[in-house]
Amino acid sequence: MSRRSWYACPAEKVISRLTSKVTDPIRVGVVGLGRGFALTAPSALVSQFVQFLAATAPREESRAAFQDIFRGVTYLSYHDLLNDPSIEAVHIATPHQLHAEMAMQAAEHGKHVLVEKPIAISLSDAERMISACEINEVTLIVGPAHSFDGPILKAKQLIESDQFGRVLAINTLNYTDFMYRPRRDEELSTVDGGGVLFSQGAHQFDIVRLLAGGQVTEVYASTGRWDMLRDTEMSYQAMLRFSNGVTAQCTYSGYARFDSDELQGWIGETGNPKDPDNYGGSRKALVDFSRDDEVRAKLARTFSAKNLRGIAANNEHFGPLFLQCEHADLKIGPREIIVYKDFEKEVIPVPLIGGPREPVFKALYDSIRLGKNPVQTGRWCLGTLQVCHAVLDSAKRREPVFI
Amino acid sequence: MSRRSWYACPAEKVISRLTSKVTDPIRVGVVGLGRGFALTAPSALVSQFVQFLAATAPREESRAAFQDIFRGVTYLSYHDLLNDPSIEAVHIATPHQLHAEMAMQAAEHGKHVLVEKPIAISLSDAERMISACEINEVTLIVGPAHSFDGPILKAKQLIESDQFGRVLAINTLNYTDFMYRPRRDEELSTVDGGGVLFSQGAHQFDIVRLLAGGQVTEVYASTGRWDMLRDTEMSYQAMLRFSNGVTAQCTYSGYARFDSDELQGWIGETGNPKDPDNYGGSRKALVDFSRDDEVRAKLARTFSAKNLRGIAANNEHFGPLFLQCEHADLKIGPREIIVYKDFEKEVIPVPLIGGPREPVFKALYDSIRLGKNPVQTGRWCLGTLQVCHAVLDSAKRREPVFI
Repeated sequence: MSRRSWYACPAEKVISRLTSKVTDPIRVGVVGLGRGFALTAPSALVSQFVQFLAATAPREESRAAFQDIFRGVTYLSYHDLLNDPSIEAVHIATPHQLHAEMAMQAAEHGKHVLVEKPIAISLSDAERMISACEINEVTLIVGPAHSFDGPILKAKQLIESDQFGRVLAINTLNYTDFMYRPRRDEELSTVDGGGVLFSQGAHQFDIVRLLAGGQVTEVYASTGRWDMLRDTEMSYQAMLRFSNGVTAQCTYSGYARFDSDELQGWIGETGNPKDPDNYGGSRKALVDFSRDDEVRAKLARTFSAKNLRGIAANNEHFGPLFLQCEHADLKIGPREIIVYKDFEKEVIPVPLIGGPREPVFKALYDSIRLGKNPVQTGRWCLGTLQVCHAVLDSAKRREPVFI
Repeated sequence: MSRRSWYACPAEKVISRLTSKVTDPIRVGVVGLGRGFALTAPSALVSQFVQFLAATAPREESRAAFQDIFRGVTYLSYHDLLNDPSIEAVHIATPHQLHAEMAMQAAEHGKHVLVEKPIAISLSDAERMISACEINEVTLIVGPAHSFDGPILKAKQLIESDQFGRVLAINTLNYTDFMYRPRRDEELSTVDGGGVLFSQGAHQFDIVRLLAGGQVTEVYASTGRWDMLRDTEMSYQAMLRFSNGVTAQCTYSGYARFDSDELQGWIGETGNPKDPDNYGGSRKALVDFSRDDEVRAKLARTFSAKNLRGIAANNEHFGPLFLQCEHADLKIGPREIIVYKDFEKEVIPVPLIGGPREPVFKALYDSIRLGKNPVQTGRWCLGTLQVCHAVLDSAKRREPVFI
């Protein structure tokens, strides 16, 4: 059975919509087969730009699942993966605190790096990763991340075509159950990279920075840290000011109460339809759990055949997103961009081509094969990490933080 | 024909839903029969708390309409209205710049004052109005304003019942066509009280202050002033910090592009259904207008039989509004409040009782007859005006403004 035929029909149909396929996909090895990779796997399986040939992860079950599903080899150690000469690029999908060391090791082995957001927890770690990749002349891209979502990239393209004039103001909000999904200890500890800033702010600030197109110079923010049993930032409100005059209001809540997917036609973050009647599911699931139970529940959500979903019906998204430009407003959703001009409204469909995470794989391909980097390089994403830290600082000091 | 029978059936049906009617409504005279009063009139006609007995306005047609519709007397001068001994309270519905003098004159004549928002343009004018009303021991209420909308008052009541714990964060946005409706010159000039801060910020900050329940201590904001033909603030983004720790993100755009009533089930600000297909109507109507044409078009929207609508089917609203409290999120809409608790979602319908502006008339009644003031007194609304000015200052200076 071929690697692709294992995977069911819908994905193949999606692929057939592409006019031509590349013949030299990037050969990727993945480290970390957790929740992040479980969400990436459907797109990875149908990608024309990457082939996931190898994996390493501490758990036997995950490795077995990778062998089954991807028909790839698995290694017991990261070191062995890095020494596999067939692997060109490493996808680092481990917990945040491991990103830096792993990226530097990959660079030293001459492997290109696709690292999950956030690039790292500390700015100095991010700097070290960037240096290591520059010195070793390998690509460093931070993703998958929602700034690679089809509609975001399409919006960026539209903005650059200059038909709407300059971007002037951005407003975005996302209310999710993020902090009440099962969490490991470090995910509930800010100094260890827990809370919504590093995991979720990284998405939102990437998106806003990409579309605003300038440097963030100033951040004014508050954070919500209101559940003493999960004592980290569970929500924030941040206003960003850019060098080009754009301002952006960003709201995030991971409190598992109001769900802003209600405003997105009940299409969830992953592009799949969401059941509006399943209210409070995340909190209910946690209610009788000890910390140990919760950590076990987290493990149960990692990459496996059971957790593998088909290709979503829509693009992924990160909450309602409104742009004001000189000549139009834009509303960017998981299916389409609506352009509100002076006298008419235009709906620009953004069909899903390949899996929802195909654009990040294309970016990796373009960087390695064509020498064409995306915006979301390590260095650029260091700027996003600065914003995450600035939000924490501003909330603590109750004053604007300059970057 | 009685004053009430002139008005058609639906209003009477609404009235019949009230269990008991007061027998001593406040006898009101109105000055200014412009657009503001055109929107207030339907509620005024069916109110049990007020009787609009007299009016004064410069235009003959408006006065005639008042005589026809309200069966009231009209005066050629404000002075004559103030000398009508049957009038207990004056509703000042004139352009912003006239509020202060008129309120002070009313107070000096011993008349209670219900003044349209904003209370005034300058803080010193507002102070003078407040003093005059205090010295003369008359009520000063600022309204109609959206902080009197049924769902806002209901939310305030729910919050005060303490079932959700403290309010922690607020997020609200409103994208309208406000600045492309026909405007007089001063409405396009900030120093004369034009732009969205005084007219629209006054609503939004009232609402947010009412629900947050503390003092605004700090404002961080940007404004949008991007149409050189209408060179005033057409939009803003403001973050408010309160003494009790609440923060609020407030976005307003009057650019007539994206319309956030789309997120409110296409119920418009006045509580009436809105036609989603009538895109760009406001801008289209202006496109071939000279300034003179536009001013004439504004006049055509003033109070008249033609412009008198029936009672709206829903409460009025001022855009999507989300609250995070300790134990629940609240989404406040024109029909209902949705309470998102930890494990369940509760929909609290907020039926319209009387006209959508009945609560402000009740507030006037309660103040004058029962000595029970609403939150929205002149002194309290001075605080809202301070926020409006702080937004302008913060945007100009690009730094937080302390209040």
